[in-house]
Amino acid sequence: MKLLRYGPYGQEKPGLLDDDGRIRDLSDHVVDLSGDVLGPDRLAQLSSLDPASLPIVEGSPRLGPPVAGIGKILAIGLNYRLHAEETGGKPRSEPMLFSKAITALNGPNDPVMIPRGSEKTDWEVELAVIIGSKAQYVDEDRALEYVAGFTVINDVSERSFQKERGGQFIKGKSCDTFAPLGPWLVTRDEVADPQNLGLRLDLNGQNRQNGNTRDMIFGVVYLVSHLSQFMTLMPGDVIATGTPDGVGLGCKPPVFLKPGDVMEVSVEGLGQQRQDVVAYAPGG
Amino acid sequence: MKLLRYGPYGQEKPGLLDDDGRIRDLSDHVVDLSGDVLGPDRLAQLSSLDPASLPIVEGSPRLGPPVAGIGKILAIGLNYRLHAEETGGKPRSEPMLFSKAITALNGPNDPVMIPRGSEKTDWEVELAVIIGSKAQYVDEDRALEYVAGFTVINDVSERSFQKERGGQFIKGKSCDTFAPLGPWLVTRDEVADPQNLGLRLDLNGQNRQNGNTRDMIFGVVYLVSHLSQFMTLMPGDVIATGTPDGVGLGCKPPVFLKPGDVMEVSVEGLGQQRQDVVAYAPGG
Repeated sequence: MKLLRYGPYGQEKPGLLDDDGRIRDLSDHVVDLSGDVLGPDRLAQLSSLDPASLPIVEGSPRLGPPVAGIGKILAIGLNYRLHAEETGGKPRSEPMLFSKAITALNGPNDPVMIPRGSEKTDWEVELAVIIGSKAQYVDEDRALEYVAGFTVINDVSERSFQKERGGQFIKGKSCDTFAPLGPWLVTRDEVADPQNLGLRLDLNGQNRQNGNTRDMIFGVVYLVSHLSQFMTLMPGDVIATGTPDGVGLGCKPPVFLKPGDVMEVSVEGLGQQRQDVVAYAPGG
Repeated sequence: MKLLRYGPYGQEKPGLLDDDGRIRDLSDHVVDLSGDVLGPDRLAQLSSLDPASLPIVEGSPRLGPPVAGIGKILAIGLNYRLHAEETGGKPRSEPMLFSKAITALNGPNDPVMIPRGSEKTDWEVELAVIIGSKAQYVDEDRALEYVAGFTVINDVSERSFQKERGGQFIKGKSCDTFAPLGPWLVTRDEVADPQNLGLRLDLNGQNRQNGNTRDMIFGVVYLVSHLSQFMTLMPGDVIATGTPDGVGLGCKPPVFLKPGDVMEVSVEGLGQQRQDVVAYAPGG
């Protein structure tokens, strides 16, 4: 099942993508796709619906983040060896954790804003894990049971804010629009192996990142288990699992985003995002 | 005005503390003390009520965090020089920022749990700033206008998780019960000078921390302005402004919390917290 939220900012409605790629409205069956409907029982109820019985949504509405009421965005740094090397970081013996502010959340195709004073805004395609059930001290062999599904996140990062402004990473990871999420939440049953998914990011039509989740240092199962030792993971929580090599900071010379740029961001089987890069404008 | 939330976990009702120290129920005037009632207009409405006209709450109910639906807990590291020295950190030229997971939130007098596998759980009394209005790129001279008020936070910290588990600080700052907040939100008009407030933490009746917010390296006005350059601050967001010296890690030899300990935590004019330290138990 591919679950999504469509409509204007702040007024998104729940929907699903049918096998023909059309959006079907779920409003008669669920108020919103918030954490409380991401557990196995509620997902099974939604899965039992016949998509053909649901209203077709005409046109091409905007998509929002596929989950409402997200409580936290946890993110793993330096989780692909080549990316760690290109950014001057060292892989760790345990996952390097930081967070992104939830105010950074963005629809998958919404514009990404360059913050005021930024000269080093950068891209990072990542596999995002969406938690489905409350997880505390979860063993690795049961970790996937706590996962509702997967989606794409662009872990947009301002490298100067991240590394040169007194610390820690959160400073460069939390600007408005820095967390495009979606296009849809693909439920776990539709992802045969989360550790064998291609990751790709193109900038202005030129390929910049082309990796595979098999190269993660710490895989999804390990991450869910590990993080649940340090805090309670709640339904709807997002884990951004790290990015492969090919970010702007790793180019020689470095390349950073500027207004007018276009990012196309995808994870195999999970759909594609497309973001126009724009100058900062207040609001939202 | 001293705003609070009272009642069992997850069922808290809004209230205020009257001049005689009694809790008055606010349920007829506000659904809950969430971010949407922390702006100047709504606070003025609540302030115009005659406390004597509000129902008295009998007994001594549990208190919850004084704000509902908190979106993020931002925290400043190493913001008092003597504390930076005692923990081996260096003061920064700009504030050192990390976050605490919102699942760490706790009532001011709820037990604090030692996480599984912890040997280095520590205390940190801090002044907490509660944001009242959405803040983006706020100048210092207007920063206080975006503040609803102040309260006490104990920034409980597991030093091994924080410093020895691959990074960053969030790993040791986010365990369940690690963010006791309250007892009440004291509105800004009742705090003459947030940079002249005594801070105190006693462990088992022995004084451990005894500082003053005048010794902050970066004060409240600077912090609100600074953080709003990196992300949007939303009503209800919490900024934990750093702790003075006297934490367990700084003792020679270090002292850490164990079940049976009692912490009493206060900020001048903002009330007192009291936490029993207990072993980890699942649930919550």
